[in-house]
Amino acid sequence: MAKSPEVEHPQMVFGWAARDANGVLSPFKFSRRINLDNDTTLKVLYCGICHSDLHAIKNEWGSSVYPLVPGHEIVGIVTEVGRNVTKFKVGDKAGVGCMVRYCRSCDSCTQDLENYCSKVIFTYDIGIHYDGTRTGYSNKVVVDEHFGVKFPDNIPLDAAAPLLCARITVYSPLKHFGLSKPGIHLGIVGLGGLGHLAVKFAKAFGVKVTVISTSISKKEDAIDRLGADEFLLSTDSDQMQGAMGTLDGIIDTVSAKHPLLPLILLLKTNGKIVMVGAPDKPLDLPVFPLLLGRKLIGGSSIGGMKETQEMINFAAKHNITTDIEVIPMDYVNTAMDRVAKGNVKYRFVIDVGNTLKSS
Amino acid sequence: MAKSPEVEHPQMVFGWAARDANGVLSPFKFSRRINLDNDTTLKVLYCGICHSDLHAIKNEWGSSVYPLVPGHEIVGIVTEVGRNVTKFKVGDKAGVGCMVRYCRSCDSCTQDLENYCSKVIFTYDIGIHYDGTRTGYSNKVVVDEHFGVKFPDNIPLDAAAPLLCARITVYSPLKHFGLSKPGIHLGIVGLGGLGHLAVKFAKAFGVKVTVISTSISKKEDAIDRLGADEFLLSTDSDQMQGAMGTLDGIIDTVSAKHPLLPLILLLKTNGKIVMVGAPDKPLDLPVFPLLLGRKLIGGSSIGGMKETQEMINFAAKHNITTDIEVIPMDYVNTAMDRVAKGNVKYRFVIDVGNTLKSS
Repeated sequence: MAKSPEVEHPQMVFGWAARDANGVLSPFKFSRRINLDNDTTLKVLYCGICHSDLHAIKNEWGSSVYPLVPGHEIVGIVTEVGRNVTKFKVGDKAGVGCMVRYCRSCDSCTQDLENYCSKVIFTYDIGIHYDGTRTGYSNKVVVDEHFGVKFPDNIPLDAAAPLLCARITVYSPLKHFGLSKPGIHLGIVGLGGLGHLAVKFAKAFGVKVTVISTSISKKEDAIDRLGADEFLLSTDSDQMQGAMGTLDGIIDTVSAKHPLLPLILLLKTNGKIVMVGAPDKPLDLPVFPLLLGRKLIGGSSIGGMKETQEMINFAAKHNITTDIEVIPMDYVNTAMDRVAKGNVKYRFVIDVGNTLKSS
Repeated sequence: MAKSPEVEHPQMVFGWAARDANGVLSPFKFSRRINLDNDTTLKVLYCGICHSDLHAIKNEWGSSVYPLVPGHEIVGIVTEVGRNVTKFKVGDKAGVGCMVRYCRSCDSCTQDLENYCSKVIFTYDIGIHYDGTRTGYSNKVVVDEHFGVKFPDNIPLDAAAPLLCARITVYSPLKHFGLSKPGIHLGIVGLGGLGHLAVKFAKAFGVKVTVISTSISKKEDAIDRLGADEFLLSTDSDQMQGAMGTLDGIIDTVSAKHPLLPLILLLKTNGKIVMVGAPDKPLDLPVFPLLLGRKLIGGSSIGGMKETQEMINFAAKHNITTDIEVIPMDYVNTAMDRVAKGNVKYRFVIDVGNTLKSS
């Protein structure tokens, strides 16, 4: 008979879990595996809140397993390393992002694209690791060193958390789809957690940025504070008409169903729209407007571990920060409500180290 | 007062025109401009029939102007050249394809992508040229030399006609989207006029080809005669399941509304679907499956004049032929009915030179 996770993985930890699809989080004790030869253990100091966490705790993707401990932007200090570990030593600043296991042998894995491995295990996938243990908002995490990232000393650890998901989600497509070249003109649709980081990276790359939003209230922040060059109110047909055929590419961060045609019309010949938000319903794709301009619509999901480390080093060098609101652990349910309403500028980070209590 | 086209363009020609959206073609006399300094005049010998002609005569795109003389795969012999013309001399074999005028100054035009110029005038656009005259199935055509193409001697003129639209429509995206590299695995959806040419070009490029069709009756032709490597019956879910994640790219030639998800699932990481058919209704685009594999859906429409000439030279060198059925002019209405039903292997060409009578 198979042993229970608690017997097989006797290292007890504590965090906050949702018990059902209501998604309300509350304190929870559970077990993790001990630190194996290729593993690194972190004492967790900060953990970011991503919209995906909200999808997971409310079972909006239909694959959640309860109790579910969310969280996949985990930052901490290394407290233990296995004997094969070469990347980390005790005391290092380190992080764990969206993934914890890959097949190592498929075409994607051998090209440093573990994120596209069909057997990848995401940190927030279904709440359960292959070894039967859980992940997320907790005091301690054990991970194969391959999935740990190192932080340069000049990155504050609280603001480092969103590097592990939000930032790589926008950095990777800018590079892959050729939208990071100085001088090109990029549109960014939606100014939230992903959008504001896309503006910062694009400006660091030397790209001209137009923020496209349904909300005029975003204009001041986009231009004056984040440094976008232009702002388009997508509900204003005159503005949209005037901008037709001006963009080389668009990063579309919107997770709700929305029309693609007005965005396709903004593109120049050979223009590209890259979806990084994931609407749960299909979008209407008009084909003729794609043909008449050799345009394309692609998707991109986070990034591989090698590129994640490259992005972190780039962010450190260019001093690119994430705008965060640091909150105590017991504020997490309120924070989730605010994430659902888009009421955050621009990312919550839980101060796990100082506010997560074991009882 | 503006002069009528007949007074301003006194060169009388004759062809076949549709008088209304019933799309029935019948003999018609009309006028063309005289041969100007940059123009070349062709005596028309052959003209291909494209599905676009059917759309145009039946006003399915909503922009037709009647009387409408369709046809944009025009092949003939040069009978007159203007004093600035350097590309042609009297007696040359030449052709006119989908375009007759461009702006010459936009980003697309200066990159040899006249086909994506927002001011391009297509040969079959609305039945009327900027100079007030008509195009198409007729005894004589006058065109700026820029839009004439030259045919190597080893290409038979009847089979050359479809080079001017159908072939460049599949050749251009194979090259642009990196789907012409030897060793890659390409899917071709739909085995009609475009699909059968896509198979021939892809095989000439050294690409592995899988034909994907709703009709098992296409299998024998695809494999035995056209040389495709594999055949997938898209209505067979076991076959489709077994082929998941195996294709680097897909050329989708289908003009009717159809589901994209099964095609997206056939792609490897970084896989590409390129639409060359133009469904008149939007397709359902599921976004998540694009994200989980960094896949993309693009469109492509014919090709520029420089690339069209390159393609013709490539086809001549590799002896790539089009499968045609040569018909007399007075068979055109029956042929259109058969095009509508997909009942042609694989392209009609009208023998204009021998069968178009002036009365």
